[in-house]
This record gives sequence, structure tokens and C-alpha cells, in this order.
Amino acid sequence: MKLKYSYLIIFLFAFVPLFGQQLQSPNGEMVMDFSLDASGKPTYQLNFNDRPIILPSTLGLDLKNEETDLMDGFEISSTETSSFDEIWEPVWGEEDEIRNHYNELEVELTQSSTGRIMIIRFRAFDEGLGFRYEFPLQENMGHFVIAEELSQFAMAGDHTAFWVPGDYDTQEYDFTTSRLSEIRGLMQEAITPNASQTPFSETGVQTALMMKTRDGLYINLHEAALINFPAMHLELDDENMIFTSLLTPDAQGDKGYLYTPSTTPWRTIIAGEDAGVILASRMTYNLNEPSKIEDTSWIKPMKYVGVWWEMITGQSSWSYTNDFKAIKLGMTDYSKATPNGTHGATTDNVKKYIDFAAEHGFDGVLVEGWNVGWEDWFGNSKDYVFDFVTPYPDFDLKGVSAYAKEKGVQMIMHHETSSSTRNYERHMDEAYALMNEFGYPAVKSGYVGDMLPRGEHHYSQWMVNHYQYAFEKAAEYEIMVNAHEAVRPTGVARTWPNLIANESARGTEYQAFGGNKANHVTILPFTRQIGGPMDYTPGVFEMDVYNGSHVNSTIANQLGLYVTLYSPLQMAADYPENYNRFSDAFQFIKDVALDWEKSVYLEAEPGQYVTIARKAKETGEWFIGNSNGLMSRTGEVSFDFLEGGKSYIAQIYADRSDAHFKDNPQAYTITEIEVSNEYVLRQFSAPGGGYAIRIIENR
Amino acid sequence: MKLKYSYLIIFLFAFVPLFGQQLQSPNGEMVMDFSLDASGKPTYQLNFNDRPIILPSTLGLDLKNEETDLMDGFEISSTETSSFDEIWEPVWGEEDEIRNHYNELEVELTQSSTGRIMIIRFRAFDEGLGFRYEFPLQENMGHFVIAEELSQFAMAGDHTAFWVPGDYDTQEYDFTTSRLSEIRGLMQEAITPNASQTPFSETGVQTALMMKTRDGLYINLHEAALINFPAMHLELDDENMIFTSLLTPDAQGDKGYLYTPSTTPWRTIIAGEDAGVILASRMTYNLNEPSKIEDTSWIKPMKYVGVWWEMITGQSSWSYTNDFKAIKLGMTDYSKATPNGTHGATTDNVKKYIDFAAEHGFDGVLVEGWNVGWEDWFGNSKDYVFDFVTPYPDFDLKGVSAYAKEKGVQMIMHHETSSSTRNYERHMDEAYALMNEFGYPAVKSGYVGDMLPRGEHHYSQWMVNHYQYAFEKAAEYEIMVNAHEAVRPTGVARTWPNLIANESARGTEYQAFGGNKANHVTILPFTRQIGGPMDYTPGVFEMDVYNGSHVNSTIANQLGLYVTLYSPLQMAADYPENYNRFSDAFQFIKDVALDWEKSVYLEAEPGQYVTIARKAKETGEWFIGNSNGLMSRTGEVSFDFLEGGKSYIAQIYADRSDAHFKDNPQAYTITEIEVSNEYVLRQFSAPGGGYAIRIIENR
Repeated sequence: MKLKYSYLIIFLFAFVPLFGQQLQSPNGEMVMDFSLDASGKPTYQLNFNDRPIILPSTLGLDLKNEETDLMDGFEISSTETSSFDEIWEPVWGEEDEIRNHYNELEVELTQSSTGRIMIIRFRAFDEGLGFRYEFPLQENMGHFVIAEELSQFAMAGDHTAFWVPGDYDTQEYDFTTSRLSEIRGLMQEAITPNASQTPFSETGVQTALMMKTRDGLYINLHEAALINFPAMHLELDDENMIFTSLLTPDAQGDKGYLYTPSTTPWRTIIAGEDAGVILASRMTYNLNEPSKIEDTSWIKPMKYVGVWWEMITGQSSWSYTNDFKAIKLGMTDYSKATPNGTHGATTDNVKKYIDFAAEHGFDGVLVEGWNVGWEDWFGNSKDYVFDFVTPYPDFDLKGVSAYAKEKGVQMIMHHETSSSTRNYERHMDEAYALMNEFGYPAVKSGYVGDMLPRGEHHYSQWMVNHYQYAFEKAAEYEIMVNAHEAVRPTGVARTWPNLIANESARGTEYQAFGGNKANHVTILPFTRQIGGPMDYTPGVFEMDVYNGSHVNSTIANQLGLYVTLYSPLQMAADYPENYNRFSDAFQFIKDVALDWEKSVYLEAEPGQYVTIARKAKETGEWFIGNSNGLMSRTGEVSFDFLEGGKSYIAQIYADRSDAHFKDNPQAYTITEIEVSNEYVLRQFSAPGGGYAIRIIENR
Repeated sequence: MKLKYSYLIIFLFAFVPLFGQQLQSPNGEMVMDFSLDASGKPTYQLNFNDRPIILPSTLGLDLKNEETDLMDGFEISSTETSSFDEIWEPVWGEEDEIRNHYNELEVELTQSSTGRIMIIRFRAFDEGLGFRYEFPLQENMGHFVIAEELSQFAMAGDHTAFWVPGDYDTQEYDFTTSRLSEIRGLMQEAITPNASQTPFSETGVQTALMMKTRDGLYINLHEAALINFPAMHLELDDENMIFTSLLTPDAQGDKGYLYTPSTTPWRTIIAGEDAGVILASRMTYNLNEPSKIEDTSWIKPMKYVGVWWEMITGQSSWSYTNDFKAIKLGMTDYSKATPNGTHGATTDNVKKYIDFAAEHGFDGVLVEGWNVGWEDWFGNSKDYVFDFVTPYPDFDLKGVSAYAKEKGVQMIMHHETSSSTRNYERHMDEAYALMNEFGYPAVKSGYVGDMLPRGEHHYSQWMVNHYQYAFEKAAEYEIMVNAHEAVRPTGVARTWPNLIANESARGTEYQAFGGNKANHVTILPFTRQIGGPMDYTPGVFEMDVYNGSHVNSTIANQLGLYVTLYSPLQMAADYPENYNRFSDAFQFIKDVALDWEKSVYLEAEPGQYVTIARKAKETGEWFIGNSNGLMSRTGEVSFDFLEGGKSYIAQIYADRSDAHFKDNPQAYTITEIEVSNEYVLRQFSAPGGGYAIRIIENR
């Protein structure tokens, strides 16, 4: 479906006075009312089964250097309703078919004092609402600068929220669970250190924001199709419980530079009586455009190991030498440098990982620290920090590639940019071409530290535009991208399915930096994952790591993550040695699928537990994952998703009854039972624990 | 000669206490004294024949976020003196051989409280002094941020200065001539409007700054080898007549991000008893590195006409249509747009210029406004403003190129970036490749308007780095660059001789925007031209232009500029019709050479007159140009530069006695006389006038 700008209709209906309009979802349960108030200010509200999700809230934008903003003085010049229903097939995902079914209301507003035309487009899905602003090509509006978007989301009560601090530069916070009214008091504590961070308010939070009302409704606020626009935060008026959008500023404090025709991203509200509705919703993808990549045959899910965790835990280094106080690429003579003896990305070490990957059926091996420049890469606002093509003397790029090919393993490239984005763009073609030359199908990119151009933020329009440029250009080279520290995803992977993963939240690495809250992984599916897959890098079996940090998780919990945290890119992060120590548990990581025909959200309560069953695309095997929160729990899930009249073998990897994320994380059991679709599983999960199940048809 | 970092010497002389050192120029006339004061602060002074050029002035840098700056607490850990004398051949220039002759003093300073090592390197030439800071690779200094460079230039009196306001974004000001003490009072008046401008101080001025002392010494302050560093301004303490360097800030207000090993640009002081010494000095080039382009055979001076003046004067437009309020490249359908009827870069019009160029022996034709996007290119801080490859529907890129080739004329490409530099860098490879495909040997690039990334300035380190990137990448494609609105040149064209010209000052275009001061061109050789050639675009014959603006110049003055304002790239800016009207005067533009074996600076007084004789490289013909100031004048110049015993024909294009830039600019005479090397020319020049002479051997 192509968006049509109803340029002509303006004139047809221009004199039809309309002051309000209702839009219902296909099943009639989600009801949005739109109106203009007396000052011509757009207002909407949203009810779900007659329960208020959004109380009357105003919509509009504050413009820079304009006498009149896009806030009020509007008349409805035309409205148009339509319905849409289609099924599309994602290149990868939690199911092989996605239904995109909504009713749409297009409200065309004319601001009589300026003659400007602005459209607000609403789409009501059974599980929520999306809306966006559109600025069609017109006589009275060309270029404009957004000082702020002021879209309100008025909450109907003091909900429980699962939030991270609003920040222009990092998303890597633990979640805080609190009432909305408690956010202000907890903000300071919630702002933990990061390599680049710019929190901006005592009540500002990030999306996707997950909430639960006192009467048990689940509400999720996020955005979809964030393209060439700054990422949205939510600023809470905690007297009235009204969130207002707050965009990420640029180096000058401006928000967005737009010109007609253009649109904002969609603002999304997903709601339901069961938390599983939030997980099952595909609204975010549905509000994005279909794939712009025609031949997607080169985009393939990957399970991988890599030279990474040993650096994260401090056991080895990205850098090759300690000789230099600063590195000048092209001038520094590495051949004369003294190796520091801790460099991780040596040819020998990488070959060890390749051997391991080949032996255990992994698709890929990631190598970080392979290229020159890591000695002073961080915290220096260095411009020419990496060239992305020159390997260290002890990393034989050609030899390693040939060895991997021989072993049937693919190499995953690493491009840490150190947030020096101009430098990355300058080297991108050469870097991607090198990947093509040596057969690397995917790249993990990174944006650690403060941004260059200096003054820009990780989530400003300038940077959102950069990330987009990076994966669009990667697509030209048939390269898959896994961007870390980039802006949180908003379903853009539907349009560019080579964006196979992002980090954009607190990942496993923080388990080596002091630990994540043990229930972190029970919130991620409701928040970070709403916009697209996360490269969470699970699979840690040894919880007491080299630098003394403790991983707040059990082994069974780690296994469950391969199912609960969906991603077409899944790492097994730990050392080969640790997998060899627990080879029976490791078997699940080897077995688990990456791409799914169907997903069933069995149990879900943010902060407490998530249990998901998924059917693998090719083998038809089922996998179940459970992530458990801070309290031990025995859940009950029915296997009625299985086909009737058949017998199955369930291999259950679970916490032992005395397991605990803190002091007994490696206590697990592996049992095998025969099950059918009538089976009901009662399964214990330890604090910070979980379980993982593989179900094979018993022929 | 390669610079050698005297890393070892530090240790050899580290315990030799040295508090002062003198450096003399090869002829002994220029004497620099260096010392440390009691607080260990570096201080220098400069005398010329015992007359003070620079009174005792301190040197140092203020660092950001460092407890100790690089200002004091230094000890001299070693000094080293050396001499250098070589002759090198520029690829193009005012002479075919340049002597680089200096004595050097390297002062290595150690800051005992920090252990940091900083070198100040001085080079004394017969006509001046260069110095710079160097930060060798060392244990105690890696990355650092310059908050400000604080190099003082203490003047010995209230000199007369020829200055433009200090500004981070434009150099396009008329010069003000005043005493130093008068700068503050004249500043506001001097700051005339520009598309992007950021003046910063009531006493801040730009380099190259030309001065004259009460007792007739000429002093010029500038910089050389400005690479990956912000451009320097001079801030005047007008109580003490001390200039202090003031660097262009970045978006965050910081000045420069450096890491060892690195150096600052050279700070240059040129001085002499004759103003011609300033013009004849090659210190600025000599302080740059030799060419990094090995095969320079593709770099060739060009004389060109173009589709440009008609847009500047408002007669035609860069844009193709008036249909759209904003253009979305790739979405806007130009094929359906209504042509505005004023578009300059049509195939037919361009062919007319090609025909004219071919008929009159010009090398090239520049075409501006050939590519889509000009409808909203300016003042909108637009990111994706041009793609540099898509022609307008009425410009047949392929056809025009073929036509030009057939006619033996080369096309000059135009890349206006609208200061959207990320966008330019993203399209640069494709744009240069297109030039190669269609045989364009040179590009005129432009940086009109406020900078993107937003918050950056035209002369900040970030942007200096960009311009460098642009012409280095152009060199890869064997493309010559003529960058407008880019940072003022500092002799970098020695190293990258494909940088054949810059604008970087108020050019002829301002004659169509209300006019330049009639003596502007008598100051440019002492200021703007110190760093390298200017694409001033002379040759206007019709002074009352389409939009009503008046060109403050006579035709004879215009002709003289082809000699006085040296450039290997010279435009004949006016319409073919105007050249046809004055075909006898036009003959000089056709005859004048572009590249020189030798130049003789016959008369020079900034603001008043400049008369230069140059011998053409291939033909051996001599050309003389005179640019005259505001008052009529009869100068006297000896032809003793000619070879003795030979007879020559001199074709003299001069102002008629009643000529005047304001009300009688087209009154000129052309006379032919026989001369020898004993001839002394007494020649009248009108206010805003001048003359031009071609001297051919009379065989």
C-alpha cells in the first residue's frame, strides 16, 4: 500500500465543518475520538472496551522561528476513513505471516491564519493505536524546524511503569519499576554511569515504555518508523499524569529539520488485558513500509560465537600493544610495537573459536579488536580513530577467512566507530567492500562514547539519519547489520530486513560490569523488543567472571533467553571452555532455532515472568523459553499449541530446586518426558532463573 | 626535506640549563630572540635590522579539562639549530623556481610538573619568521583538547592595518583601512551582511593581516599549513597593541582536538621595508610540505568562461522551476514541473558559452545550476540538498560534454554544497566519478550558508578537515579543485597542487551585490593572496549590471587584475555579448598567460596601487598589471626586467584620462609602443582603474 496524499480532497471538503470524528478498531474494542477544541487545538482520546487508555490529550508541534506554531487555530478541512487488511511475510521473525489489519482516519487540518495544511493520520488496530503528523507538499509550507513535538499521552491513573531514564545518549540502564508518581524520586538512583549519557529531566523516560494500570490493563507507548527524525522521549507531568513527547535535540538544541512532503514517525499505543497482547502485537512493524530490499535471499539468521566476552570480562584486550599514548593511523608503526600479550583477536585464538563453531554447528564467529586503533579508541573524541580495514599484525585477515571458509563457518565483521560517524561514513564503502572480498556476511557496528560531530546526540535526527545510511548502504553490499549503541529500533527492519539486530538497551555485557537486575530480561520483551530484535548476547554459563563481576542469572535462565528474547542473530557469548564444562546444557544452545513459523505467548507479566513457545520454521520443532524474575515461581503452561493426536519428546532444561542467580546459578536439571497437546507443564523457576524446552515429535 | 622529531636529543641535552636563544635569518637581518621568563613562560621577539617587528610576546596553549595548561612552568630541555636551503619547482605559480632558505631553531621545552614535552620550532627567513608548536609522541601526553591558543604578536606601535572583521563563517568583507586603535570603533560598520556570519569580537580580525608602521615598515601576519586545526584569528588588546591568536571554535566551543605526535600550523610574520617584499615572499608555501601528488601532469592552469555572472546579476536563475515550495530529491518530479523560463544552465545557453570559449581560445566553461535541487538550496539548513549527479531536464549532460569535446573545450563542474558537508561527502565519490566519466578536469565547490553539521563553523577544525578531505579525494580522481567559501588558503596548495584556487575573500560577485570598495583589489594581494591563488573572477566590462548594482572598477582595472591577482585559474566573468562589444580590450584577456616563469613586483602600496610584471612560462612574453586605488595616479616603472639589447612591442591597455570607476568605467585606450629594457613607463591610472600590458619581443 502506498500512502496517498489527498491533495485534491482539501478543496472538495474545505467547507464542510467537522469538529469531531471517531475511529474504531476492526473488532470495535479500541475506540479513538478525535476533536478540535474551541481554540482549534487537535485532541484525541483512546478507550479500550470502554476503559480509558488515553484521556483527552492534545496534539501539535512547536516550530522554531515561526510566529504561529502547529498547535492550534486549526479547522478540519476534510476527513477520510479507510480499512486495510493484508497478510505479509517477514524475511525473519517470530512468525512466518503477519496480519496488518486496521481502520484508518485521516484528518486534514487547515490553519486558517497561515494557510498551512497538516494531516493527522490515525490507525486503529485491535490492540492499539498509531498516529502521526503529515505535512503534504503545499503552497504555504516548505521548510520548517521543529522546536518540540507536543503530543500528549494523558494517563488515566498512577500506573506502574517499567522505565529507564530519558537520555539523549544511552539506553543502557536497568529498568526501574515504580508508580508514575514515584519516577521523580527514583530518577537519580536510576541514572547509572555510561560511557556517554545525557539525562535531561527528573521525570523523562524512554520508550518503549511499559505500564500496568491498577485494574490490570497493560499499556505500551513507543514509536514506529523512526526515519530522519529525532527519537522521542516521554516527559511526565506527574501532577496530572500526562506524558508529553520530548524529541532528542541536535547540537544547537533544535529538534527536527523537515520540509514538505514529510511525516513524523508513528506514535504507538498498544494495550490489552493480557500482557501477552503486548508481546504478540506487530503494530510496530505494521506501521513501517514493506521491504525495500527486493532480493532478500542473502539475509539469513545466524547463531554465532566470538572473541568478545573475554574482552568484556577483562581477561583479554581489544588492543595489541601498550606502547603508545596515542595512535596515529598510518603513522604508528605497529610492526615495531611490543605486543601487550593480552590481545584477544590473534589468529590462533580466532581459529580456536572457528574450530569450536564448526564442531558445534554455529553459523558465525565474531571477532572484535581485529583492526588497528584500539589503543586509544575510547573517551578521546578522536576523529580518525579506525580505518576498518587494517588488521593488527597478529591477525591474519586473509588466513582467518580462508580457514573459516574451509571449516564452513562465516566470519562476522566488527566496526566499532567510537561514535566518530563522519570517519565511519568516509570508510564505509571500503570497509563493506573488504567484507565482500573476504566473505563476511554481517557486521556488528558500535557507537561507544560521545558523538562526533561533537554536540550531536546518539538519538538526534542527524544520528538517526546516519544509522539509516549505514544499513541502507550495507544493503547495497548485501551485508547484514547488528548496530550497537544505535537508536532503539522502531520496526524499521520490516523495510530494511538486513538490520537483523540492535543492542539499544542494557545487554549481557553489563553482567560483567557489576551485573543486571535479575528480572531485567523479563522486562526487555515488553520494552526494548517492541521495536525489533536485540543482540542481547546470552549464553553465559560461568557467572563469576574474570574481573570479579557476577552474572545475575542461572544457566537455565540463560538458555531460556534464546526463546524469550527473539532475535535472528543469537550469540553464545561464553568461552568454549565453559561450554565444554557444561556440554549437556550447551546442547540446547546448539539445538535452538533462530527463525519461527509461529509464536505463542504462554505467560507474561513484566518484571516477573515471560514464557513463550515457538515453532521452528524448517524442522517444525517447538521450543519453549521461560525467563523468571526475582522470586522463585512455579508456572503452569498448557501444551495445547501442539498438534493433537501426536506424541512428542520434551527435553527440559530447568533450574534445580536450590538454584539461585546469586549463589547457585549453575544448578540445573535436564529431563526428558513424553508429552502431547493435552499436557500441562508445572515447572519451577529459581530467582533469576528460567527454563528452556525442546519438543520433538516422537515418531 | 622531512621533519625530524628529535626524540633522542631530549635526553642528550636534558640537563643543560638554557634560558635563551637567538635565531638569525640567513642574511642576518631578521633576528628572533627566544627566552623563558621567571615563571617558565616561553617568550619571543622579532627584530628586522634592529627595528622591532614583534615586541616580547608570550607563547602557549590553554588546554581544556587539564589542571596544568601549556602556558608556563617550562624548562628548556634542549635546543637545536639547523639551516636549510633548497630550490623547488612549483607545479604552477608566480615563478618556476622557489627558494626555501631559512635557519631553524628547535626549542624543546619540558614542563616539569607534568613531564610533558612541547617543541617550539622557529624558522627565520630573510623576510620573516615562522613558528609552530609541536607535540612529539611521548609518555606524558596523548590526547588533548585546545581551549585556546595564546600566541601573542605584540606590535611596536599603533600601525595602520588593512583588516576584515574576525568571523567564524565568512571572509567576504570589504577591507577597512585604519589604525589599530581605530578597529574597535569601526568594527560594527565593517560587518556587512553575509549568508553565514559569526563575528565574535570588537577587536577581532582575520589573517592574513597586512599592516604598515608609522616609519614605513610593512608587516604581515598569517598562518601556513593549516591542516586538521581550526583557522586562527587575531584578537587585539588595543590598549597595549598586542594581538593574541584566537582559534575558530567547534559546535561545543572547543578549539582543537589533538593527539601526539602533532603540530599546529605555522604562525607567520613577514616584514620588509618595501611592500613588494610581502608580495614576493614565498614563506607561506615554504612552510608547507612538498607535493604529495607524484604525477602532477594532469594539473593544468585554466582560463574559463561560464554560466555564472548572469545568475549573480539576477538575470537568470540557478533553479529550473518555481513550482515547488521544497524539493525532495528523488521524489520531486521535475519532468512535470513548469520551467521558470529563467534557468541559466540550459543546453542551448551552455553551448553558446562553449562556442564562445572555442572561438576565443578559452580552456574551460563553468556551468552553475546544472543539477537538480536549486529551488530550495539556500537558507534552509537542508541536509539532502543536492546529489551532484542529476542534471535538470533542460541540461543534457552527455550532449554538452560531447559538444565541448568536439569543440576542444573542457567543462568545469560545479558542486555547491550549501554547506551540507556530510551530504557532500556521501556523494563525493559518485560525483567525482561522474566528472571522470564526462571529462570534467576541475570542480568549483561552494559552501554557502550556515554549516551542517549544525553548530560547526566554516573555519573550525571539523570543516578544515572536510576541505582537506575534499581535495585529497579529488586528487585520487585527478580532479582540480576551486573551493569557494572554504577556509582561507595557507599554502597547502604546495602539498596538494590540485587545489588550484579558492575564493575565501570578497570576490567579484559582490560587485553585483552593491559593489566592492574600488581599492579592494589593491589590498587582496597583501592579504588573501598570501596563502594562495584566489578565483576572483575578473573581466567584467559592463559595470552597470542587470540588477542595478554598479561594478566599482574600470575596464582597464579589470584587465590588470589578470596579472596583479595571480591565479592558475582565471575566469572571464562577463557575458559573451559584452566581450563582443569591447573586442579590442577583450584581446588582452585572450592573450594573458596563466603560468609564470618569473614575477617582478614593480610598485606596491596596500590600498593604493600594485604593479607587477610577469614573464609567461612558455612564450616568454611579459605581462604587466596595475591595480589602482581610489585616487588617480601616474606611476613610473622601469622595464629593466627585460633582457638587454632587445626590442619589444608593448601593447598598453590603460584608463583614458577621464576614466573613473564610478561614472566612466569604460573609457580606455589601447596603444602599442616599442620598448627596451631601458624604457621607463609613466602611466596614468584612474580612480578604481589600472592598466594591463603585453610585451612581445620584436623580432
